[in-house]
Amino acid sequence: MGTEEWAEVTPDAARRLLTAAVRAFAERGYHATTTRDIAGRAGMSPAALYIHYRTKEELLYRISSVGHRLALDLLRRARDSAGTPAQRLTRAVGDFVRWHAEHHTTARVVQYELSALAEEHHTEILELRRATDAAVRTILEDGVAAGQFTVPDIRGTTVAVLSLCVDVARWFREDGRHTPGEVGELYAGLVLRMVGCAGA
Amino acid sequence: MGTEEWAEVTPDAARRLLTAAVRAFAERGYHATTTRDIAGRAGMSPAALYIHYRTKEELLYRISSVGHRLALDLLRRARDSAGTPAQRLTRAVGDFVRWHAEHHTTARVVQYELSALAEEHHTEILELRRATDAAVRTILEDGVAAGQFTVPDIRGTTVAVLSLCVDVARWFREDGRHTPGEVGELYAGLVLRMVGCAGA
Repeated sequence: MGTEEWAEVTPDAARRLLTAAVRAFAERGYHATTTRDIAGRAGMSPAALYIHYRTKEELLYRISSVGHRLALDLLRRARDSAGTPAQRLTRAVGDFVRWHAEHHTTARVVQYELSALAEEHHTEILELRRATDAAVRTILEDGVAAGQFTVPDIRGTTVAVLSLCVDVARWFREDGRHTPGEVGELYAGLVLRMVGCAGA
Repeated sequence: MGTEEWAEVTPDAARRLLTAAVRAFAERGYHATTTRDIAGRAGMSPAALYIHYRTKEELLYRISSVGHRLALDLLRRARDSAGTPAQRLTRAVGDFVRWHAEHHTTARVVQYELSALAEEHHTEILELRRATDAAVRTILEDGVAAGQFTVPDIRGTTVAVLSLCVDVARWFREDGRHTPGEVGELYAGLVLRMVGCAGA
């Protein structure tokens, strides 16, 4: 797990606790993990943990929030980049896949433990997910408007595109046949075909 | 969750415990669930549970085994059915998606708790997963051999097709916009495009 992922989290101790929580949640699940486990993994006392996070749920919320914002930023940059819709979609899928492959441990926690968030946090994260969805949908709509894509069901296809990328976090292994970049490239090509992009 | 899913599990008490375990694992995760929780949900005593299952892991293994075999059977029936490769692929994707939508609670346990299986069970389940992969790969190879599909990377595309279908279990909601059958139909069309099937 790259530390640049958590660069925005300060101070150091707070960041260490967050990465310890990611590992613990990924290995044992949110509900089976205690704040004592997390503090122990970070080489700290439970009391030191509470200086930075009041509850275990606050740790999950921070992980989920950082993870969703990073993913959303990638997709928005692709949406707003120069180039044809096909080029922007290629970038969106390539970057989103690579993120899910490189950060698969974080991504699994982010994707599979959503239901453990407190209600107000869940609501906030759902907003980020809607924005993520909208970024991809906009590229598809632009491609259809430009006559470059043929997409019978834009909403359903948007879900499928994101779903294909997100699931990389479930199956990706560092020792597998493809690098994150190679999976990103393969999937970008498959997605261009899904949207009926001529020549793909 | 349809009870026909577990029809092969007898007697009744063993089946009731299995469906209780699926619900508990899906809600709280495998590691946070105790055999006492499962027995309680099934309206039975922990002692009664041990008549049918020696350990919590045995319950997970049974769930995983039944789930994987049902999914594999669907795909093998599609692979062996009459029709063109496009028709067989349409059936494979449609049935596999519908299974993951209709049985999304079971499918999540089956897909996300693999690492909690004991080693010998994990090995056995991996064999079923390889067979699942092979069933879809065969259809793609048949389509390429018949000149109906254009697939630059058959192994990578097989992973992508299965991945797209499996992830339905993560996001599908009964109160969503589409029925399981509609998602299956949409995804079969997208997959035909992914394999470069002319006319799709």
